[in-house]
Parts: sequence; C-alpha cells; structure tokens
Amino acid sequence: MTNREFLTEYVSAFTHSLVQSGVKKAVISPGSRSTPLAYAFMKQQGIETYRQIDERSAGFYALGLAKASNSPVVLVCTSGTAAANYFPAIVEAFYARVPLLVVTADRPHELREVGAPQAINQINLFGSHVKWSADLPLPEQSNRLEFLKRHLSRAAAMAETAPKGPVHLNVPFREPLGIDFNQQYESEGELYRFESSQQLTDEAAAFLQEVFSQSRGLLIAGENTAQVSTRQWEFIRRLGWPVLADPLSNLRSNVPEDLKGMIIDSYDALLKSEKFADSMVPEAVVRIGPQPVSKPLSLFLMKTRPARYVVIDESPLLRDPQSAVTHHIQQHSAVLWEMSLAAKSPSPYLEKWTKAGELMRETMSAHCQQELDEGVLAKAFFDELDGCDLTVSSSMPIRDADTYFQVTQRDVGIYANRGANGIDGVVSTAFGIQAANKRPGYLLIGDLALLHDMNGLLASKLQAADMTVVVMNNDGGGIFSYLPQSKEERYYEELFGTPTGIQFKAAAELYDAEYFSAETVEELQAALRTPKEKAVRIIEVATDRANNVTVHRKLWSRLDEGLSTWS
Amino acid sequence: MTNREFLTEYVSAFTHSLVQSGVKKAVISPGSRSTPLAYAFMKQQGIETYRQIDERSAGFYALGLAKASNSPVVLVCTSGTAAANYFPAIVEAFYARVPLLVVTADRPHELREVGAPQAINQINLFGSHVKWSADLPLPEQSNRLEFLKRHLSRAAAMAETAPKGPVHLNVPFREPLGIDFNQQYESEGELYRFESSQQLTDEAAAFLQEVFSQSRGLLIAGENTAQVSTRQWEFIRRLGWPVLADPLSNLRSNVPEDLKGMIIDSYDALLKSEKFADSMVPEAVVRIGPQPVSKPLSLFLMKTRPARYVVIDESPLLRDPQSAVTHHIQQHSAVLWEMSLAAKSPSPYLEKWTKAGELMRETMSAHCQQELDEGVLAKAFFDELDGCDLTVSSSMPIRDADTYFQVTQRDVGIYANRGANGIDGVVSTAFGIQAANKRPGYLLIGDLALLHDMNGLLASKLQAADMTVVVMNNDGGGIFSYLPQSKEERYYEELFGTPTGIQFKAAAELYDAEYFSAETVEELQAALRTPKEKAVRIIEVATDRANNVTVHRKLWSRLDEGLSTWS
Repeated sequence: MTNREFLTEYVSAFTHSLVQSGVKKAVISPGSRSTPLAYAFMKQQGIETYRQIDERSAGFYALGLAKASNSPVVLVCTSGTAAANYFPAIVEAFYARVPLLVVTADRPHELREVGAPQAINQINLFGSHVKWSADLPLPEQSNRLEFLKRHLSRAAAMAETAPKGPVHLNVPFREPLGIDFNQQYESEGELYRFESSQQLTDEAAAFLQEVFSQSRGLLIAGENTAQVSTRQWEFIRRLGWPVLADPLSNLRSNVPEDLKGMIIDSYDALLKSEKFADSMVPEAVVRIGPQPVSKPLSLFLMKTRPARYVVIDESPLLRDPQSAVTHHIQQHSAVLWEMSLAAKSPSPYLEKWTKAGELMRETMSAHCQQELDEGVLAKAFFDELDGCDLTVSSSMPIRDADTYFQVTQRDVGIYANRGANGIDGVVSTAFGIQAANKRPGYLLIGDLALLHDMNGLLASKLQAADMTVVVMNNDGGGIFSYLPQSKEERYYEELFGTPTGIQFKAAAELYDAEYFSAETVEELQAALRTPKEKAVRIIEVATDRANNVTVHRKLWSRLDEGLSTWS
Repeated sequence: MTNREFLTEYVSAFTHSLVQSGVKKAVISPGSRSTPLAYAFMKQQGIETYRQIDERSAGFYALGLAKASNSPVVLVCTSGTAAANYFPAIVEAFYARVPLLVVTADRPHELREVGAPQAINQINLFGSHVKWSADLPLPEQSNRLEFLKRHLSRAAAMAETAPKGPVHLNVPFREPLGIDFNQQYESEGELYRFESSQQLTDEAAAFLQEVFSQSRGLLIAGENTAQVSTRQWEFIRRLGWPVLADPLSNLRSNVPEDLKGMIIDSYDALLKSEKFADSMVPEAVVRIGPQPVSKPLSLFLMKTRPARYVVIDESPLLRDPQSAVTHHIQQHSAVLWEMSLAAKSPSPYLEKWTKAGELMRETMSAHCQQELDEGVLAKAFFDELDGCDLTVSSSMPIRDADTYFQVTQRDVGIYANRGANGIDGVVSTAFGIQAANKRPGYLLIGDLALLHDMNGLLASKLQAADMTVVVMNNDGGGIFSYLPQSKEERYYEELFGTPTGIQFKAAAELYDAEYFSAETVEELQAALRTPKEKAVRIIEVATDRANNVTVHRKLWSRLDEGLSTWS
C-alpha cells in the first residue's frame, strides 16, 4: 500500500467508525492540516456535514446540533489557534452536558514546539473542560486500524455516557495530505457498541441470548473485587460454558462442588500448547471484568479472533489492548445474572475443557512432587490458605497465582494492583485490604517489590494488623528472566537483574516482625502453620532465578507431553 | 472598615500595583462579576483603558497593543465562557512571546461547580499556554494587601521575563460588587521592581551604591549551591556589613580568616532575644538567595520592616513569604561581586554583631560542656567534618545546622532540600550529591525521614558510594514538640509524635552498612573517627524528644542571660 492509499484507508476507517458509533453530523471548518479528514467526512455516507468558517461559531453551531438531535456531533478543524477557538463552546458543552467530539488536526511530533507555523501544543488543550482526550498516532502503515476504530468508539461512548460532554481527539498528519477519492473502504473488524442505557436494552438482551445459545462458548472472568453472589454461581451453572477464571476473578475459591469442572484454572498453561489451542477455537467469547493476566489467553484470542468477542463493561473506555473485542455492552456485569437462561446439558466443548483441566491437575501434582522452584513453593503456600485474603504482587506473583492457585472450596479472597500493574505500593495495599476485611491477610511478593514498599510494613505499628508476608527472594528482577532481554547478556544484571543481595531477616527485626526462612515445601508449611504471635510475619523463601525459569519450563513441557495425544 | 471600603481598597491596590509594575494599558470587556476591577481600572491614573465587547477581539486587540508598546497589557473580563474567549489570543501571545496579564473575575469558591450561573472551573483555565497562573484570595478584611501587591508584581515580572508571554490571574469576588469612587487610596508598602535587563541597569546600580553606603546594613545570604568565589569574599570584605549566613549559603565554611567576625552564624539564636533584636534594627537589608530557614530572622524583618529590603533574584517569582521585601532587582546575585565598592572601616553596627557572635560562641561552648541533647551531638558531629559534603534533612536537622554549624575555615559543602522542604527523598538526594562531588558524603537525618527514604540506601548497591548517615533517633516527629500542637495532648502521639520504635541496626544489616550507635559526644566522635570500610556507615544517635526541647530552650535562656547587659 502506498502512503496515499494508507492515509485514505485511515481517514475512511475514522469516519466509518464514527457512523458505527451513532454519529450523524459533523461541522467542518476550513484549513490545510485537516484536509484528509475534511475530505473523508464529506465523502462518508451516513454523516451530514455542515460548514462554518469561524471555529468559535462552528463550536456553538455544533452545540446546537447536538442539543437538538441528542446525539454526539463532530467538530473538525485544522491545527493552531483554530482549535483554541472551540474553547468557549467546549466549556459550555461541558457544563450543559452536551456530547461533542472535537477533532483537531495536528502537525506531527517533529514539527511541535520547534517554531513551525500553526503548531501549538494541542495535547490536553482543553484541560479539565473535556471529559477525555486522546492524541492519536500518525496514519502510518505500521499502525493498526483496529486500534483506531475502537478508540473512536471509546471517544463516542465517553461523550455519550452520563454526564454527557465534550471529548477531544487530536489527530496528527504528515504531508502530503491528499487522499484517493475512488478508493473503496471495506469495513471489517469493527466494534459494535450497544446503545448505552440504564438497563440492558432489548437489542442487547436478544443478542446475548443468541450468543449464550452457542455450544462452543467461553466465559472469561477478569478481576472482580465484589463478593461472588449465589446468583452468579447459578448463572454459570445454567450457562454450561467453561469459565476461564483469572485468579483475581475470585471464581477460584468458594467454588460449589458441582461447578468445579466448569471453572478452568489452567487455561494459561493449556493454551501454551499449540495443539490444544488449535482444537479449542470458540465460536463466541463473553468477557466480564478486565483482560486477564494470562498472555497465552490474549494470544489465543488475537489469533482466533472470535466472530463474537463480547465485553460487558460499564465504562465507556473499553479495556481491549489487543483490539480484538467485537461487541461492547456498556453495563455492569451483574445484568447477566438476571438473565433467564434455559439450563443446558454439558456440551462436548465443556467436557474437553474439564478433561484438560484434570490433566493439568495431575501433571501439576506429579511435577510438584519432583521439583522445587518458586512456582512449586507458591502452590504449597496457596494450598495452606483458608478464611483469609491473599494479595499478590505484580510481576511474577500474579503469574504464579494464575498457574498455581487451583480451584477450591476453601475461602480465599485474592487481590492485586492491576490498574497500572506496578510493583510499587503492594505492601501498603495488602495492609489496607487486611484492615478493611478484618481477617488474616497474606501477601505473596518478590524481593524488589517488598523493598520498594518496605515502609508499608509501618502500617502495623500505627494500626492493628494481621499479615503474613511470603517473600520470594530471587535477588532481583526475576520476571525479566522470562523475557527476550534475558538473551542479551550485555548490561543484563545492571539494568534488569539488579541484584541487591538483600536478606529480609534484618527487615523483620527493623519492623518488629516474626521471621522465618524456608527453602523447601516442608519448611514453608511449617512456618505457615506455626501459630502467629506478632502483627506481622515475614517468611523469606530463597529461590534462584535461573532455576525458576528451568523448572517453570519443565512444567510446560510435561503438560505438552500429556497433551500429545490430545484431539 | 466596611466590606465596601475594603473592596475599594483591594481593587485600588490592584490597579495601583500594576502601574507600579509598568503597566500602562488595560482592555476591559463588559460583565458583572468584574465590576469592581473595571471601575478601578477606569479610575486609575496612569492606565489608559480600552473597551471591547467581544473577549476574543479584546484578546487580539490587547495583543496588538502589547506588541506595539512593548510592555504588558492587561485584559479584564467577567467569569464564565467570557474567559474562554481569550484562549486564541493567549495561545498566539504564548508562541509570539507577547506579555499579557489576563485578569478573569470569578465567583467565590462556594459558587464553583455547584451549578451556579457563569461559574466554570477557571483554575489553570489556559493550561500550558500561559507562563504562570494564580488564583487570588477573595478581598476580605483578613487578607493582607501586601501580598496582593507583591503578587501582581510577580505576575507582571513573569510576563515580562524572557521569553515574554501571557500570565493569568483569576480574581474571585463576592457580591455586592460596588465600590466607593471617592475613597482615596494611600499607596504604601509597595514593591519596587527594577526594569529587567541583561545587566544591572544604571538605575539599579546607583540605587545599590546608595544602599550599600548605609552603615547599619545587613547582607542576608540564603541557599547557594554554587562555589563561593574569591570575588564574593572580596565583595563581603569591602562591603563591611555583617553577613547573616544561612547554613546553606555555604558562607560558613572555607571562611577567610579576616572575615570570620563578619560572617554571623548565630543570628537565629541572637534574634530570639527581644532586647538584642530591638537594638539591632537595620537601615537597609540586601538578600541574595531564598529566605533563610531562621524563623526569628523572618519575624525580625516582619517586625522592623526595613525601609529598604532589597532582594537580588533572577526569578520573576520573588521569594518573599512575609511580603516584606521593598525592592526586587531581577538579576543573578553575581552582579554584586562586579560592583566597585570603596572599602569602609568597620562600622559600630558590624562591631556589635561581631561581639554578639562571639558571645554566642562562648555560651555555646559552655552549654555543650554541660549538656547533652540532639543539638549538642549535632555540633560535635559538625565539628568533625572537613573536605566533605554534608546533607541535612528538612525538619530538625536543617535547624540544628543553623544553630550549631559554626563559621569555620574547614571545607564542608552543605546541602538540603528547601524547595518544598519535604522530609522525603533526603537519603537519595544525599547519595546523588555524593556521586556528583565524588568526595565523602555525610547526612544528618531524623528517624522518620530516614525511614521514609530508606530505599535510598540502595544507591550504594548499584553505584559507588561513600556515605556516613548520622540518624538522630528520637522515635518520631521531633519537630512537633517545638510547635503549638505539642500543648494539646489529645491525639498528639497518634498524629504528630508517631513513634515507630524503629532501631536502625537492622537497617544497616539489611543494606550491608557499617553500624555504630552513640549516646554521648565521645561515642559519636569515636564512631566518626573509625576508619570507614564499607560504602555506607550508619551512626544511630538515640535522643529523647522531651529532653531535646528542654536543652534547646536552656541554650536560648543561657544566651538571653548573656545578653542581659546588651545595649
């Protein structure tokens, strides 16, 4: 594709996605940098265009259009002070709660703040008077249009979500700015967003009924901090689909006996096997909560690109880093539990998932008897827990929870910071959770994250606390050993491994905590079973980064072997 | 004074200060909330007013006025979208570097974001396209006009400082908005700012010559991280004024033998004595660097309000929390060293300061032989230092440095974080200083600040380091014991004292540092004199909060006694 062809494709996808999102009107002001968008809007079927020379007037004109038509109206202008002229109308729209999609063309990064004409800083130009703003990537062949389409849907959804208001999209273009008017745009892979309303609309309900009637369906459950209700368990029972449950979904604990086979806790391991993944392609996927932590699952969804990948999420800002979601129902996931579904007999698809889950359990069991590494120790730790809350750090602990925390009837709440996935503040978060839930708290954390928020332990000096910290001390950044960087030896230890040689016995003393060290499963169990006397107990488990990688990989190859006869 | 009288006074001071700052033109748009300012500008002699109904036009009109007259022009409008209409002209002014003072009237806080008419969020309204913005306090009788006057000078200075540009002042008013046209405004206590230029202007140079010819003059030296040049010492020598040197001025170390009597290191202690302070009222004060840490000095300047309190500071944002400065010369302080001053014979005023300084030295000497507290230990620590850098934490350590770090020929660079005076990040800053200067680093810090940035010690694991940490462990927030809160027993320990019971021996072990504990001067000296073997050495000095207060106060009363015959 030539650059001109790609630019044409980009702006066509731009306007087409807005039509898909329910946009019907656009007000265009003249200018050079906005040329590709102006052309595309003129050409786009389903969008009525209006012209206004003065952007300030254009802004208030669009406000009137949006007020009267009760749907979001697009504004398009060129770069520079043109955009600033929208400001009065944007402020009015913000307080009057009128949905506007303000699209400002911009110069590319290399022309910003260097004295180029009509180049001003347009990032966050309208400050706190827009509900959301985004700086879009340049239309370059390497950019994925899927992202663009979904981002425009996000913008429209944000403008239309109560309280409605203006949203700003800044769109840089490089010259030349001409497009090919004859180039056809084949719309595909776009997101369908159901009309937002207080309750599930009839359209959305009918759609979901049809989706849930599929026999090769997957329910994917991401993080959820609300208590799992009996109605949710009942919904899962009637749905009869395998449930791929992220450790943070809290669907792996308190699991009713009859549902144990339906809750799949080993999809991360299973989907690493190409053979298995290829045989389990779903017809429909419904996700509640954010994207699970499992990378194999993300890759599986990206590769299979299910025709219906539905997300139930009350936020207009759809969580979809792979741009693979096809339908967004902007509702709280609890609307599902109210749906009346006819109970189905178990499908062969579910039976295969259940069987694979059992295979993984057996493989894991054998593996843990023969090996010793961070994962094996993590499993021994998880198996001890009941009537408590577990916080897992970002980096390796959340991944070890994914692999080694197995479905159980025991009562364990699982928490992690997955909003931004940082390793900072984990100790403090765990203490906050413990203080709110008022039952024993457990924390699984690596040495770097514990060091990072070691002051979090002070919480125990200032408030009542009951915390057991299990620190996997592999002397540095263990997760990097699993990443491509680990193959480059130069600067590896300085930049990624960052060994500190820190031992936490002294930290325990510093913060007046009980201290245990454990190198074996038995030592770890003994430490966990010792009656706790102080507010904080630190159990330091010394592990080895290289060995962890080897043994983790051994588990995958053992499972792969078990799946060799899979069909 | 009635509210109406005060409102009249406020807006009169407003416009008068702008005249003082060189403003000659204002463009006013009609509106209700801006009524008091609009009246005041119309009435103000020395300001030519222009009217424009549309604020967007007003903005570009003011831009034209400012371009052609090469001086800052004021814009005045009412609250709401009126202000937003200035945005295009503001953006143009920002990139074209044209000085504008954008004054937007606003509703008071209780009418913001509650659905009141013409009330929008005007805080930081113009985002990154103004050089500076400030939300002014309401004109209430409790507000000090001195602050207003200086803040307007700051705004004008900022607009005029290269690169020139727009500045935003948001000014809330409560109804009623009428002023008294017949009320006279007596201008007094205003700041005089000398025209900003590359070099000292003739006017400023002549003014300084006159100021420096005074015999009762004080040179106040605040924080300075540049090396003190021989030309600076030579300037001090010729000036013949006492120099009140903040510990961070770096004028207390490397002091030439003949200047020892001129560098006053004990003004904080001396000015606590009312008798002393009353007898030492200066005729002129010149300050370089920011406001020193000493509170007695601030109170002294506030009380005596010298007729000429000159600050040499290259920033337009004058540092003057007491609103006591009378003249601002916007230049780097190094311009002083170039001035030719005739050497003077020592004045009786200098001789009195020198004598008082000697008295304090003797008192301190006797005090330290009889007492033991954080201060006495700090002095013993400071007296050991040479050929090194010392970082002092905020809170008590900087104050102990002020009191106990005495003028010396030894070579000690002193640093602290006094931009925002936080106790966070102090350890890391000290290691950064040590890494840059590549000579032994010392850190004086309290237990809470050390805990706060204990991870800063990790610097020693990742880079070469040579650091001695002296931690004064008084188990909590010692400085609060000196503040009025300490008289209220309820919640005191929970909210202010916050004892943690932390001992740092374990921290030393954790970070592989040498550890010493010291409770006496001799133990501290022994620890400091022990040859250092590891990258980091922690010397923990256990002190007692209550005793520290008692002994500090004993020093002041001993000095007070010594000053009982002062005249």
